[in-house]
Amino acid sequence: MSQLSNHTYDEITLGQTATYTKSVQEQDVQMFAAVSGDANPVHLDPDFARNTQFGERIAHGMLTGAYISAALAMELPGPGTIYLNQSLRFRLPVKLGDTLTVKLEVTDKKDRRKLVTLSTNVYNQDEKLVAAGSAEVMAPVEKLTIDAPALPIVSVQNQT
Amino acid sequence: MSQLSNHTYDEITLGQTATYTKSVQEQDVQMFAAVSGDANPVHLDPDFARNTQFGERIAHGMLTGAYISAALAMELPGPGTIYLNQSLRFRLPVKLGDTLTVKLEVTDKKDRRKLVTLSTNVYNQDEKLVAAGSAEVMAPVEKLTIDAPALPIVSVQNQT
Repeated sequence: MSQLSNHTYDEITLGQTATYTKSVQEQDVQMFAAVSGDANPVHLDPDFARNTQFGERIAHGMLTGAYISAALAMELPGPGTIYLNQSLRFRLPVKLGDTLTVKLEVTDKKDRRKLVTLSTNVYNQDEKLVAAGSAEVMAPVEKLTIDAPALPIVSVQNQT
Repeated sequence: MSQLSNHTYDEITLGQTATYTKSVQEQDVQMFAAVSGDANPVHLDPDFARNTQFGERIAHGMLTGAYISAALAMELPGPGTIYLNQSLRFRLPVKLGDTLTVKLEVTDKKDRRKLVTLSTNVYNQDEKLVAAGSAEVMAPVEKLTIDAPALPIVSVQNQT
């Protein structure tokens, strides 16, 4: 079992960075469709997607948002973080097989309420910016090192 | 098989509304953990969550973002929508068993580039605002009525 630990408000410094990388697989797009309820054929149907401006299936834009939220919760500040605000600008389509890296950088701290602002830009394997944005969180005040629960095992049966 | 149809830019009117409702079940939180990679115990471990300020497990905040994206893609404008921007302010925790309703309302249209701005506020079953925000999309110009692909069938095995 792996360990999760956090960065407390007092430990966090302006300019501090962290990254979180995920590869977008077929199963991820299927899972995001199931969990969100978004069954759009541009994500699920290769024949339909071929005739769109994208030429092939693309991932749901908000899957990128899910990775940003995981980066904040798992990496910086980590467990105990309270998510307050997120802005997201979707710039480029994400294709199946792309590898996305969320780059977090602390851009502001406010002692009152322990608020931390981070830029949350997401790049693909070609270092192209696919989503730009920023987050505001309330950082944890207590240091926490815990056993990370195992991620659930999910199996997907594509009905299409 | 159900049908999906969209609202084209020309059809969309200021003040037009749509809603999208989902109930947050155990399986949804497990799936969101798996798809995002966010294994925080406040979402997955009842014993850990009991000792947090929330007193019980809460859903990932960005699960609400996933529902907003589905509302835009499935309801208004619907298929063919290109998602450009989203702002999100998380206001209240979402608990397992809560029923969330995304309320979309068109607040602006810009003919150049067919841009549509919508407020994207999300309420729980007690009509409390759990997430506030707005989205900007490029609306479809072509009317589309298509067979909705079936959502994938997902089974989740909780390892914790």
